[in-house]
Amino acid sequence: MNSTSFLRTTVASIALCALAPAVSSCTSSAAPASEANSSESIAPLFDRTISAVKDNLHKRMEVGVPVPQPVDAGGGYTHEQHKQNAKTIYEAGMLFELTGDERYRDFAASVLLDYAAMYPALGLHPQQKEQTPGRLFWQSLNEAMWLVYAVQGYDAIRADLDPDTGSRIETGVLRPMAKFLSEGQPATFNKIHNHGTWAVAAVGLTGYALDEDAWVKQALLGLDESGDAGFLRQLDELFSPDGYYAEGPYYQRFALMPFILFAQAVEENEPERQIFDYRDGILQKAVYATIQQSYAGRFFPINDAIREKGLNTAELRYALAILYDLNGDPTLLDVVKLQGNVVPTPEGRKLARDLAAGMAAPFEFESLLLRDGPAGDQGALAVLRSSSAKDAAAVVFKPTSQGLGHGHFDRLGILYYDNGHEVVADYGAARFLNVEPKNGGHYLPENTSWAKQSIAHNVLVVDQQSQFGADWKVAQEFAPQVLAFQSDGEIQLTAATLDTAYDGVSLQRLVAMVPRPSGGEYVIDVMRARSDEAHSYDLPVHFKGQLIETGFELDHATTQLTPFGTDNGYQHLWQRATSQPLETVSNLSWLIDDKFYTLTFFANAPVTAYLTQLGANDPNDNLRREQALVLRLENENADFVSVYERHGRYDNDEEVTVFSGSSVASISQTAAGDVAVYTIIAETGERTQVLWADNPAPDASHSITLDGQPISWTGPVTVIQQDN
Amino acid sequence: MNSTSFLRTTVASIALCALAPAVSSCTSSAAPASEANSSESIAPLFDRTISAVKDNLHKRMEVGVPVPQPVDAGGGYTHEQHKQNAKTIYEAGMLFELTGDERYRDFAASVLLDYAAMYPALGLHPQQKEQTPGRLFWQSLNEAMWLVYAVQGYDAIRADLDPDTGSRIETGVLRPMAKFLSEGQPATFNKIHNHGTWAVAAVGLTGYALDEDAWVKQALLGLDESGDAGFLRQLDELFSPDGYYAEGPYYQRFALMPFILFAQAVEENEPERQIFDYRDGILQKAVYATIQQSYAGRFFPINDAIREKGLNTAELRYALAILYDLNGDPTLLDVVKLQGNVVPTPEGRKLARDLAAGMAAPFEFESLLLRDGPAGDQGALAVLRSSSAKDAAAVVFKPTSQGLGHGHFDRLGILYYDNGHEVVADYGAARFLNVEPKNGGHYLPENTSWAKQSIAHNVLVVDQQSQFGADWKVAQEFAPQVLAFQSDGEIQLTAATLDTAYDGVSLQRLVAMVPRPSGGEYVIDVMRARSDEAHSYDLPVHFKGQLIETGFELDHATTQLTPFGTDNGYQHLWQRATSQPLETVSNLSWLIDDKFYTLTFFANAPVTAYLTQLGANDPNDNLRREQALVLRLENENADFVSVYERHGRYDNDEEVTVFSGSSVASISQTAAGDVAVYTIIAETGERTQVLWADNPAPDASHSITLDGQPISWTGPVTVIQQDN
Repeated sequence: MNSTSFLRTTVASIALCALAPAVSSCTSSAAPASEANSSESIAPLFDRTISAVKDNLHKRMEVGVPVPQPVDAGGGYTHEQHKQNAKTIYEAGMLFELTGDERYRDFAASVLLDYAAMYPALGLHPQQKEQTPGRLFWQSLNEAMWLVYAVQGYDAIRADLDPDTGSRIETGVLRPMAKFLSEGQPATFNKIHNHGTWAVAAVGLTGYALDEDAWVKQALLGLDESGDAGFLRQLDELFSPDGYYAEGPYYQRFALMPFILFAQAVEENEPERQIFDYRDGILQKAVYATIQQSYAGRFFPINDAIREKGLNTAELRYALAILYDLNGDPTLLDVVKLQGNVVPTPEGRKLARDLAAGMAAPFEFESLLLRDGPAGDQGALAVLRSSSAKDAAAVVFKPTSQGLGHGHFDRLGILYYDNGHEVVADYGAARFLNVEPKNGGHYLPENTSWAKQSIAHNVLVVDQQSQFGADWKVAQEFAPQVLAFQSDGEIQLTAATLDTAYDGVSLQRLVAMVPRPSGGEYVIDVMRARSDEAHSYDLPVHFKGQLIETGFELDHATTQLTPFGTDNGYQHLWQRATSQPLETVSNLSWLIDDKFYTLTFFANAPVTAYLTQLGANDPNDNLRREQALVLRLENENADFVSVYERHGRYDNDEEVTVFSGSSVASISQTAAGDVAVYTIIAETGERTQVLWADNPAPDASHSITLDGQPISWTGPVTVIQQDN
Repeated sequence: MNSTSFLRTTVASIALCALAPAVSSCTSSAAPASEANSSESIAPLFDRTISAVKDNLHKRMEVGVPVPQPVDAGGGYTHEQHKQNAKTIYEAGMLFELTGDERYRDFAASVLLDYAAMYPALGLHPQQKEQTPGRLFWQSLNEAMWLVYAVQGYDAIRADLDPDTGSRIETGVLRPMAKFLSEGQPATFNKIHNHGTWAVAAVGLTGYALDEDAWVKQALLGLDESGDAGFLRQLDELFSPDGYYAEGPYYQRFALMPFILFAQAVEENEPERQIFDYRDGILQKAVYATIQQSYAGRFFPINDAIREKGLNTAELRYALAILYDLNGDPTLLDVVKLQGNVVPTPEGRKLARDLAAGMAAPFEFESLLLRDGPAGDQGALAVLRSSSAKDAAAVVFKPTSQGLGHGHFDRLGILYYDNGHEVVADYGAARFLNVEPKNGGHYLPENTSWAKQSIAHNVLVVDQQSQFGADWKVAQEFAPQVLAFQSDGEIQLTAATLDTAYDGVSLQRLVAMVPRPSGGEYVIDVMRARSDEAHSYDLPVHFKGQLIETGFELDHATTQLTPFGTDNGYQHLWQRATSQPLETVSNLSWLIDDKFYTLTFFANAPVTAYLTQLGANDPNDNLRREQALVLRLENENADFVSVYERHGRYDNDEEVTVFSGSSVASISQTAAGDVAVYTIIAETGERTQVLWADNPAPDASHSITLDGQPISWTGPVTVIQQDN
């Protein structure tokens, strides 16, 4: 077969050519595959992708591909081999489609035939995982992922196979696997959860590829085709109206892939469903929301996140290619630049081609509020950015819902990025993904004992306990209330409150980004607790970099280190240094790369400052050795005002160092009636005031007189600034 | 004045146009300055440089430049201001030359006139530093640096100044400063040391610029013009025949700038001296040697090195521009790519132009032996590289001389790089350069108590003492003996011995890079001590990254940390974990970025393994929190065999993890007569053997029979490999 007849064949058999990503001629707007053979590359990034795919595949074609009896659990040999084989089938299919070279077709078919010979005799996997066992894999989730890849590879070669081979493959593995993943595990298939999405995508894609309309219907509407479950219901419930996914961006990335791949097949086969416009374009929103939840190419590592994951993951590459093919948004090409890689499909080729043609427009990373919950009423994730530039400051504020079992106890937590770096950070998950010696690559015990605990985050910890007693099922019942979000003026701010994390304590936080007349900005954080009883309040600041200076005395533990506490994560912290109670505004400065940062802080009661270092009670070296500042006070109410700023320069190329230290002259707290007034005055004279009314009603109007000036606003909080 | 008349003027006054870097028409091969005004850029990198220089300079021109009375020591306000003013004069001169815009000329002149008004009345600096006080600065070194910049700026405007202005500048500051730096401080001027080089360069450049032949002669030949001191003598003594500088690359970079700038002026004004060919081209060798002493753009951080320093420092940019102008070596353009920046001179422009024209050829980072000492007989620095690729493995082996007061007690130390990262590293200096809150930006106390000590390096430590009792003046008397260096075969190796670091102990080390049939390589380290008495031997491995697995049990200090020792740097280490005595081959694996590394080790006596972490007895948070493995044994002789390998993959984009662990099946030690035989057998069967004869004579022939095979070689060590 040559490339021409391949194209003719597929054009003739267009009805069979089911899965858009797999067959280029199905995709009207994608470039024809034959272009790839022209001598002058118009899509060099795609060519590099294909070249790498070919190199890897050719090695496997030479030595052959083992299809072992399933034995091992996740991370083990048979598990990894079957995972890789699915990608092999997929890649061989893609290359066949792209080049028309029959060796790829025959290779894909031969691997599929091996599976067809083995699969029918397989019972449940010997290492079956709890309620969701697979047959090839210990859990059915992996089986669904296998089928998503394999059926796309098969679809690419199907029209060109002799009928007997196709029939053996379908009968031996594709059909029974699709049956197993649907009728064979109804609870998972009908679940409104990303495991359910992988299952319906696998079954739905197979339905389109094998012309099984009933399977497609089940995938879309649930096993009983009632619409109570299935893909559409998942689209209704798994995303917030703003495209936020309750488990956070790390899991959102993972879930996105089956959503997007199946949606593309729906779009190609049943365009009348307008699936990408479904629920006001929820899938498109979800992709953009995922991109926005990143800094310097990496996702915000909230909840159980592997910190290395970011925009260049395979899932995002598929999403971008498919979305760009759909909407032609040139800013997506800018994100591809960050990825530096495309998928080996016609849509990937189109991305690379348009990128090479200079069609990219800047992707605007922006300040935004992503409401949480299916109805958008379960809190939100707020992002403030000083600009869209790569080195801009960004603050992430997390008054979200719990995010199920992968959620951390970090409501109202903050992250602070600047100059391309994490400045105040989240630990992420305690896990080395798939690294066998590290607990088989699963979550480590320290994920529960440290990473999920409140003290591991930049949140106020009450009485050294974690929020909601560290019980996610309890936590799942409650969401914070967003008090404010404002991103359209000079001053950006967001605020929220949560009364349910601790009995009898209301947590309240406002974060503002306030530009300074002299350039740069203050990031102002007002963290409040309101209670009728005295509590011990800890405000941890997990800062990165090298400590340079503290504006107060610290007594260092120089010859012996002991843990900072005994439980709730505190047992993992070494107590490195302790201050006397601080009764005035104090500060701490540190260095990251070529910039200095200073935190200037104030509280309504004497604060004891601690420096801690992670690593106590870590007998298996599972934790990173990270540092934190912890500010502690004892009182009924707590009012912590923290001002973060970047300053100076540490330029070793030019040998120029400028260290300025804190530019904050004073921070104070007063009251004007039922309004708390937090006043920050810079050495250069400008004055920033955070006004916080006791009345939390969003529509309540407030008027006070401040320094002789009348001030009016609506809602519980506002921030004002005046130059001096 | 317009650009044309400027060029005419300087052409007419070619005899006055003394300093090649300052006046483009002096430099026959550099592109004419007027090109910079053409609308289509042929040297975009240069244009960006000039644009940045202009932006900064214009700001200073707007607000004016203070010329304060000298008050502060290094790092203080007046110190930094005078440093910056010298660069301002220089940059204004360069821009005048480039653009002909008289405002730049007038600005440079006005700043110089301010100095001319102040300088004559200045006595010694109020904060004068020990034996080498300056007048503008606390030490004369800074004064020499000031003059090097300022006289170049002046030279660029001199021909275009009215005679009165020129006369006032010369009489007020340039002449008295040159006198002060020569006759005013004869000891420093005549010193064979980089401070002397800055002084002679300053005086010599001024001599050329002001037509003072006597000053030039003094600069070249010493104050008495005898040749016992001065530039030529410095060229004879400060570099080894291979261009190595005894203090290491960090200080070599610093010293290079006056050497190169003055040499260029000599070349332009007295080409008959053939200064760049002097001593077999020692200056050119020195530049190449400096570049070779880097990995991933950063210098090897041996001795008192600021780790951030690398190829992009200003000094290297001058060196590259001047050297390229001289020799046109296209591989230097490749280094400019790593720098991403050029100097604002015609030579910088030429670099940028040729780089843009695609003339760059790959710079070959290679395995090499840089002999140390003026005669090349004071040990050496050896570098082994697996290839010239950016992600290649590199091993640095340091049997050098002490390197004076900035040297560390780390003879026979090793560093290991791979995949663009440090794998086994050197702490560098304990210093935050010019960061005022960190001890005024000077060396920290921990530089002596930790960074210089032997335990801070990857060297064998005897009885928990540092080499030479940590006395650099004693250490300076002794150099290691290089036993072998071989880089031209499949197997690369180097070895050396040092008998003087500890009484009655001979230290011997061999490092080899052995390619594996399956790809990659083993880095094999055989560290030996020979003594008649029992000692405690510690072999530290300062590895970077996240510990993944140890092939032996470790008892972790989970609830209390105490220091690993009391002195010689040990007091700064927390003892994190301790093993039982290990009697078999053991291993330790860790993760850096996307690769795993395993160290498999063997010793001739039971080894106790410790994990340590830096940070004990650090009351000012001056130390980084770094980890190490320390292997300890007690015996008369010590034989440590360490095999390093990289393996696997930790790819979070594709979610593929492969962890293989140690591929070493066995390590053993036997004897064949007076030859020690260290045998490393891989799981794949190939066998590597390190043969080490007792006789250290380099020309001794050895023949033994090993596994029935006759083996012959010359010199004390060899490494052989056979596949199985």
